[in-house]
Amino acid sequence: MSEYRYDRLHNRWVIVGSQRAGRPHEFEEQVVRRSVDPCPFCAGNEHQTPDALAIYPGAADNGWSVRVVPNKYPAVEPSPAANGAAGNHELFASRPALGQHEVIIESPRHIASLSELTPDECTLVFSAYRDRLQVLQAAGQFRYVQIFKNVGAAAGASIEHSHSQLLALPHVPLHVADELENCRRYLQQQGQALLSALQQEELARGERIVAESPHLVAFCPWASRFPYEIWIVPRQQQPSFATVPSGEIGEVAALVQELIGCIERALGPVGYNFLLHSQPFDTSRYDYYHWHIELFPRITKVAGFEWSTGVFINTTPPEIAAEELRTARLPAGKNLTAVPNRKTS
Amino acid sequence: MSEYRYDRLHNRWVIVGSQRAGRPHEFEEQVVRRSVDPCPFCAGNEHQTPDALAIYPGAADNGWSVRVVPNKYPAVEPSPAANGAAGNHELFASRPALGQHEVIIESPRHIASLSELTPDECTLVFSAYRDRLQVLQAAGQFRYVQIFKNVGAAAGASIEHSHSQLLALPHVPLHVADELENCRRYLQQQGQALLSALQQEELARGERIVAESPHLVAFCPWASRFPYEIWIVPRQQQPSFATVPSGEIGEVAALVQELIGCIERALGPVGYNFLLHSQPFDTSRYDYYHWHIELFPRITKVAGFEWSTGVFINTTPPEIAAEELRTARLPAGKNLTAVPNRKTS
Repeated sequence: MSEYRYDRLHNRWVIVGSQRAGRPHEFEEQVVRRSVDPCPFCAGNEHQTPDALAIYPGAADNGWSVRVVPNKYPAVEPSPAANGAAGNHELFASRPALGQHEVIIESPRHIASLSELTPDECTLVFSAYRDRLQVLQAAGQFRYVQIFKNVGAAAGASIEHSHSQLLALPHVPLHVADELENCRRYLQQQGQALLSALQQEELARGERIVAESPHLVAFCPWASRFPYEIWIVPRQQQPSFATVPSGEIGEVAALVQELIGCIERALGPVGYNFLLHSQPFDTSRYDYYHWHIELFPRITKVAGFEWSTGVFINTTPPEIAAEELRTARLPAGKNLTAVPNRKTS
Repeated sequence: MSEYRYDRLHNRWVIVGSQRAGRPHEFEEQVVRRSVDPCPFCAGNEHQTPDALAIYPGAADNGWSVRVVPNKYPAVEPSPAANGAAGNHELFASRPALGQHEVIIESPRHIASLSELTPDECTLVFSAYRDRLQVLQAAGQFRYVQIFKNVGAAAGASIEHSHSQLLALPHVPLHVADELENCRRYLQQQGQALLSALQQEELARGERIVAESPHLVAFCPWASRFPYEIWIVPRQQQPSFATVPSGEIGEVAALVQELIGCIERALGPVGYNFLLHSQPFDTSRYDYYHWHIELFPRITKVAGFEWSTGVFINTTPPEIAAEELRTARLPAGKNLTAVPNRKTS
């Protein structure tokens, strides 16, 4: 049985159904790692990266735990001289690719997944996200910062050593603008913030809930585009990640780390992406928006139908995914770093 | 140097710039083929598929050249009983996944790419596309048919034997509705069909043109999402592929085959997708729309930034891609099937 399911946050339909899951697969992809030696993100090789923008000290003398550096191969650049000029031809419009592209190196040790960080390292990673949002907002020249993470070849990582990235942009990108508009309209129509209503209903039904913590709820969304997709949403209506209180950052870090551990225990050492959506840098009151994280393993391919139509086909219903992920949770107090080693070398 | 480039057909921005192309890649993916034996699409194994919906005879006695069969693992199904019921909860809306999912088996021989078809086989494949559009339009229960092709593991193929697919749908999907709206608005504003204006300007500039034929133009679009992306557009304003004259089908087939050959000679035996967009099945006059084909090798990964923002980063500017693809064209009269064998077994 399949059905179209509507994703109200993104205003899109997804085909959810498991009968295609049984089809034969003639292809299997294997990842071969060609190590870059020395790894530019390991302790001792700091000269391989541009100078750090922020350093979070570690336990050892003179050691660091998290380093934020400019991306050596940036997609966008702060200097207008490094960019193309604006072009106003009605068919070939262009704009300078202004922006800032940074890398958050998550540990001095050569590990491959966020699940292998110590709890303290992981808290510092999420502190760095929040601090960079604050610094880049204060800089005054950007309207939005996109934070994201690619782990493994299937998720588009090019370097194994665990890291996240951010792009500071002079505009609000398409998907974020769409989410904001869909949330604004929902408040107008229903008198409630969309992600407040959604989490309440998910908590009442329970079947798609994966985990909860005092300030956060994690669930597999109704119209998941990808198998085992998880959204992490704050219980309070909190539009910006830049203003999450220091005392709550460790809770976010621990929950995301636990959920990645669940994915890796349920599915093995798979590639995954996550993205952090937060409000734009302006003075509007986004009292209809929640910052949130979307996390998804990359275990299926996006193919011609998705590229043609914008409609995703998901062969793992989120109710089944949530149940498998709940089953993969560790008992409270268990060491979360005891996940399979995902290194491919 | 990078720049944002605007894609007027899809109303989206792309970051185009080559400096990220130099970054190190620690991961290499290798494809292992686990052959399904016997191959359900090879001659002699017709009983492995559901009964054919259409058969195009081949040269040999009793032989076929192209077979159209129902997909054995459909994403959508014609019978309401096979589908979920509609759900109208404001957060969890759903609709039955009504539709029809078909496979076009392109040859009785076990080949892996459209470039390996004989010219006659390839013409029959495109005839089948046109005929199925006509049949499914006449059936009266669908509003749109999406034809697409996945070749290789990276492009989401699950079976090696060369085939295309189509989904007949009861609605016009997101991306097609967006294209129609963007073309409608362009005609209103500029007094000309967008894909007429675009091909004229591309022909005048020349730098992104890859190939031409009497009724068709092929170019790498200004704001290509993917490296080496090619659009194939009819010179005349022709909104439906269902009404392409029989005498022109062979020309479409030959051009697409030549372009896939160019991609394979320029890049090696890579995976690729193509999609055919054509007008919906209704009585509106789509005098602002052109049917067209979008063809792209899948040589890069879609990663966290693209999933977060909807903004693609393309490290091969289309001007460079078009030049490489032109260089990879064969002299007129050369046998187009002489491409590298892409089988992985």
